[in-house]
Amino acid sequence: MAIKPKPVGPIPEGYGAREGELEIGCETASRLIDRAGRTPVFLYSRALMEQRMAHLRGAMPERLKINYAIKANSFEPVLQVMAKLADGLDIASGGELDLVRAAGIDPERVSFAGPGKRDVELEAAIGAGVTLNLESEGEATRALATAERLGRAPRLAVRVNPDFELKGSGMKMGGGAKPFGVDAERVPALVRDILSAGCEFRGLHIFTGSQALDAEALVEAQANTLALAHRIASEAKTALPKLNMGGGFGIPYFPGDTPLDIGRVGEALAQRFGDLPDTLAHAELFIELGRYLVGEAGVYLTRIVDRKVSHGETYLVTDGGLHHQLAASGNFGQVVRRNYPVAIANRFDAEATEVANVVGCLCTPLDRLADRAHLPRAEVGDIVAVFCAGAYGASASPSAFLGQGPAAEMLV
Amino acid sequence: MAIKPKPVGPIPEGYGAREGELEIGCETASRLIDRAGRTPVFLYSRALMEQRMAHLRGAMPERLKINYAIKANSFEPVLQVMAKLADGLDIASGGELDLVRAAGIDPERVSFAGPGKRDVELEAAIGAGVTLNLESEGEATRALATAERLGRAPRLAVRVNPDFELKGSGMKMGGGAKPFGVDAERVPALVRDILSAGCEFRGLHIFTGSQALDAEALVEAQANTLALAHRIASEAKTALPKLNMGGGFGIPYFPGDTPLDIGRVGEALAQRFGDLPDTLAHAELFIELGRYLVGEAGVYLTRIVDRKVSHGETYLVTDGGLHHQLAASGNFGQVVRRNYPVAIANRFDAEATEVANVVGCLCTPLDRLADRAHLPRAEVGDIVAVFCAGAYGASASPSAFLGQGPAAEMLV
Repeated sequence: MAIKPKPVGPIPEGYGAREGELEIGCETASRLIDRAGRTPVFLYSRALMEQRMAHLRGAMPERLKINYAIKANSFEPVLQVMAKLADGLDIASGGELDLVRAAGIDPERVSFAGPGKRDVELEAAIGAGVTLNLESEGEATRALATAERLGRAPRLAVRVNPDFELKGSGMKMGGGAKPFGVDAERVPALVRDILSAGCEFRGLHIFTGSQALDAEALVEAQANTLALAHRIASEAKTALPKLNMGGGFGIPYFPGDTPLDIGRVGEALAQRFGDLPDTLAHAELFIELGRYLVGEAGVYLTRIVDRKVSHGETYLVTDGGLHHQLAASGNFGQVVRRNYPVAIANRFDAEATEVANVVGCLCTPLDRLADRAHLPRAEVGDIVAVFCAGAYGASASPSAFLGQGPAAEMLV
Repeated sequence: MAIKPKPVGPIPEGYGAREGELEIGCETASRLIDRAGRTPVFLYSRALMEQRMAHLRGAMPERLKINYAIKANSFEPVLQVMAKLADGLDIASGGELDLVRAAGIDPERVSFAGPGKRDVELEAAIGAGVTLNLESEGEATRALATAERLGRAPRLAVRVNPDFELKGSGMKMGGGAKPFGVDAERVPALVRDILSAGCEFRGLHIFTGSQALDAEALVEAQANTLALAHRIASEAKTALPKLNMGGGFGIPYFPGDTPLDIGRVGEALAQRFGDLPDTLAHAELFIELGRYLVGEAGVYLTRIVDRKVSHGETYLVTDGGLHHQLAASGNFGQVVRRNYPVAIANRFDAEATEVANVVGCLCTPLDRLADRAHLPRAEVGDIVAVFCAGAYGASASPSAFLGQGPAAEMLV
């Protein structure tokens, strides 16, 4: 009885075949592995990041600034590329501040959001001139005390827990009780407090969700965000110097996912920007994106070390796995596991002729890279590519699990 | 309106209060943090590991050997303790072999299972005299070729994909198509092949599942394991020098979980051992346990950096989170998130007076340590304890996520 294949996610645009192999940045997968010296390896394409940013800027109103959220991928060569392409950078910890500084990026371009900032992190950020997105009244008090101790005027924005959500997003970050930001109705009072304490006010940060593929949902959330920002600014009796409108731009991972229509999002934003209230008329308007900018520019390559059959099913066992690809394995926020886009990298233009399970080398049934994928027949030594590996791959996976250690990473 | 609390898991035996605080190894949580120098920190109690092993040996037949699967916790001081307490050690990668050797443990006490062993790992293991649990015919061929190149007689066991499962186990590893081991019906042929190739035969490895709390399910799986081992040995026309009967002994994590009745498991094993067939009469009989030996001996301590309210719910934001506690956050194999056992460590004997959400410091809604737990009122600076943190905590979590880095670890 033939085993019915399960679909895999769509391979992102920009990947083609060369000499029968997957080509990344004008080189074949095999040659890139030779250069990296080992598998598994994450490859990040500079050209695809540049194209993505150019395409996005073309679709968005000129006034909109685009920040890069480094949590998506903080590998230093990627950071360097993104620091040049983006208007600013967003960090989520003191550790990420260290990464940004080590990469020689001006901390004044950086803002810091995160619900559990320690005193040492506040101190490092204020000392460096980083903008803090305050997550609570308590954090505001600690930040002001720290700034006073340092003799600095801190750069403070307030993160708002919005009273609406980004519909259809992979992760909702608004519309109810949340650990992030300050509930919208308490924000005006906090803004007045920090203004009167003599901070350099950097406006508001409103993040409603992430990984949305539905343009209309984003359009609605952005309209709500602008309206909420205006309401808060009016109540606080201040204009906003800046407004970080959050992110939410998703990428297709799974079968049936289609790319976000950024043309539609940009069009709607342009219309809103043409008719802004006084409180926002002179604001710098930002979005902050991570996954959308780098996710599809990355590919994870792992070598097949065993090919085996069990009860009629074929298993391709690789030298990689969930220790580098937690989300692709289905263990990071997913309820139902679905297949990421995968391919046999060194038989990229070959016809699919068999149904195989691709698994990692870990001794746990959680370590799955593709269930019953329809693939060209692959042998020991062949290379599996997992796409959409540019964001939340290397850094969001338990690389020390079972003594494995991190994958190689390379910008190409 | 009062918020209804969600139950938390049961705090393991052996933890009491001292000066109002959680006591671990005769010291208070606060003093242990002072010694560690920082939070978050994993504390592992040597006394609790020793007690666990003594209790287990008391319940099991004397003939049964007990191995420690270092994947559960390979922090070197823990490894040292477990190497003394256990009869042997099980590893799952070349990286774990390096850890074992760095700890000065004799590799001849070690066996290596894992579906994706690379050639370099086979070479290191064979060279060191480690027993390989072969996962496929292909791996057998590669192992024999490597051994020939090294001029060594390899120590080989065959891992069996059993044709039954451990009922009610957290992870099933038998009873159908699996990437682990060789399907039972093909094992006799493989055993004959490796015997005739001149290996040092080390018997069979049959692993049916993990994290079972139902003694009767374990009793049944162990009976099936012994019967299958006998059937394979008879067909292969050889007695078994060793039989690794796998693990599966679970610990209570969640509300309603009750401890495994090891008395019942030991009793049933003793009865079986009294009536073994010829093929097993002289076999060394093993179980291999990780989580059961060290899981409850570990506590994760993290400091509260913010206390905030959103839409009527209280959030205690800590300096730890899913980057150290992936499973406790509900993101490692669970379908429905339930609360691990948690407590306010420095108010350990105080009455619960409020319902609070305990979250980590990461900027993601996945970072939850306890939902709506009924706890004593806690303030910024107080310490949250997450129990059952001795296994699959530090090593199985994405510590680099959001630039955070690993927690401290300390044996006490």
